[in-house]
This record gives sequence, C-alpha cells and structure tokens, in this order.
Amino acid sequence: MTDGAQTGANVSIALLHYPVYDKNRQVVATAVTNLDIHDIARAAKTFGLFRYYVVTPVAEQRELAERIGRHWREGWGATYNPKRRAALELMRVLPTLDDALADLEEEFGRPAKLVVTGAQGRPNSISSAELAQQLKEPAQSYLLLFGTGWGLTEEVFARADLVLEPIRGPGDYNHLSVRSAAAIILDRLLGVRR
Amino acid sequence: MTDGAQTGANVSIALLHYPVYDKNRQVVATAVTNLDIHDIARAAKTFGLFRYYVVTPVAEQRELAERIGRHWREGWGATYNPKRRAALELMRVLPTLDDALADLEEEFGRPAKLVVTGAQGRPNSISSAELAQQLKEPAQSYLLLFGTGWGLTEEVFARADLVLEPIRGPGDYNHLSVRSAAAIILDRLLGVRR
Repeated sequence: MTDGAQTGANVSIALLHYPVYDKNRQVVATAVTNLDIHDIARAAKTFGLFRYYVVTPVAEQRELAERIGRHWREGWGATYNPKRRAALELMRVLPTLDDALADLEEEFGRPAKLVVTGAQGRPNSISSAELAQQLKEPAQSYLLLFGTGWGLTEEVFARADLVLEPIRGPGDYNHLSVRSAAAIILDRLLGVRR
Repeated sequence: MTDGAQTGANVSIALLHYPVYDKNRQVVATAVTNLDIHDIARAAKTFGLFRYYVVTPVAEQRELAERIGRHWREGWGATYNPKRRAALELMRVLPTLDDALADLEEEFGRPAKLVVTGAQGRPNSISSAELAQQLKEPAQSYLLLFGTGWGLTEEVFARADLVLEPIRGPGDYNHLSVRSAAAIILDRLLGVRR
C-alpha cells in the first residue's frame, strides 16, 4: 500500500461520548444517538476510512449502538439497504479511547497518532492541509477524535499528538453539529476534487 | 457589499422534501426531520449564508418545521441556546421551490441562479472550485438545492442553471446523508482554510 492518503486506509475516526463537557462545562457521558452512528459511518465509508469507533463507558449505551449496527449489518436492514450495511461494517463499539488505540496498535503494529478536533482555536494546531500531507505516510495510522455534547475535555486534548485547527466559515459562528464537523474534516483530508 | 464570496451573503440553501425519489424511484414527499433542520441551519450560519429554505408542499409538515423554528427563536430554546437561535433565524419554510426563488428575486432584484446537487455524476457539471469562483459576483444570488429521500427528481435537475459535481472520496461509495453533503459543499464553497 503506497498511497495511504488517497485511500484513507490508515485513518480511523472515534466519536467519544465521555469525557465531554455539557453546556455548563461539567464532565458528562452523553447518549449514543442513531444519527451520529449513521451519518458518521456513511462519511467514514465515503472517505475510505479504516474504522469508526463509537466510544462510551456506559454498557447499556454500547448495547444500543451494537443493536443498531446488527440491525443494518445482519438484520432486515442489511437487505433493505446494503449501502448502510457497508458503512456500519466499519463501526466498532468500545468502552474507552484506550481500547480504540489498543485496537489500532494491534492492527498496524505501532501506536496510532491521536488527532483531536474541536471548535475552539488553540495554539500549535495543525491545518487540515498539513495533516492531509502527513496522512500520506501509509504505515502510520491516525485516529481522528470527535466529541459529543459541548466538546472534548482538556484531559483529552492533553493526550493529543496533534490538534486540528477548527473549521471556520467567513464569520465567527462555528457551531456545527459533530456530524457536520466530521463530514467536513474527512472531506478536507481525503476528499477528491476535480 | 464587495466580497459576496467571502461572506456567503449571496448564497442560500434549500432542502426539498418534494419532489424526490424514494428507494424504488417513485416520486414522493418525505417527512421534515428535526435534525435536518438543525444541522443544516447551523452549517448555513457557519458559512454565512443568506437563507435556509425548508420546502414541503405538506401544510402539516410546514407547521412542524415552523414550530421547531419558533421554539428555538422565541421560546424556551432561545434563552437556553442562543447559538441555535442565530442559526434558525435563517430558516424560511415554504411550499415550493418557486416560492423560494420568488423570495430571492424579491430580495436581490434579479433571479437567483439555481445550483442543483446530487450524488450521481452528470455531464456538464461544475466543480466546486469553479462555482466558488462564480460566487464572487456579489450582485448575483445563488440557491443551492439539496434533496431528501433518494435524491431530487429529473424534473428538478432539468430546471438547474448549474449542476454541481458530486462529492467523492477515494473510492466509489458516496452515500452521505443530506446533512453531511450540505456541510461538505458549503465548506468547499465558502470555508476558510489556513
């Protein structure tokens, strides 16, 4: 494999439901939602990603995510909509970020680089153009981390190998849903333009 | 206003719930969904758009969309989450595409150019880079059209002034949700990169 950047095969995405902030900057575990699972899985498949990790420490929430996955991979949904099946085959449901990192280390034989995303500007962040360049090293795997709720906690940012610059439009407003933010960042990193 | 392209102020988006195809290529009216309203309104606000039209001929569905809008603009939601309010202030709920075009013609003093999007490749489509260039003419307004369900009908494509190239990743799979597709296209046209 010589063109990791073009296939996305060395890139994975994780959606963290804990630890994230709520509206009042309390650390919480958010609920798994059906559309976060579907929209991000479809974007992950479109941009050729290796895996999509849904991460929550709450066992009942993992069971819910697994049930959604099974429905579309094996159940009635697999026949009804095979495209959805292909997307949900990328999903792995795990309790912690460390579990996702361990899975990638096992698959790639070395630790993944952790790329943390957020809506806030931070010093020393990397641009999406720079990161797209880095992804061209196929032997190195990357895990792009997205937070639910009001965003990933400082504790998570402290673990980042790289922090990605926030998405910006022409003005100051950048309150995108995590589904939209993930789609845009995957396109910036791996989208094919004419 | 001299930099329409950078502000997005001459660009609007419309989400059509009719006429669109269903899975079996029958022409249907789809249901308005809460998350289509929110995600696309937030993306529209982030990229500085003029308006976000939610279009459905079904009166009860328009009332549902209006109720969601009122909740966040005027109701309890406006205080709870002012960012959501700012996004939903862009929304207009109308019965037909012609109503949206009439609204834009009234606002800009000349017809908007209709840009139709879809997942399928078509001859004579314009690339997002070319369209981004065109948007720099601030006196000309543009309406970007997205379909729900299994996509806009041929009848809608026949009305297009411009057809935008589909979003592509490294492979053949491009089954994004309309929320993800809209976010990506707005970013391609109006996003600010470092």
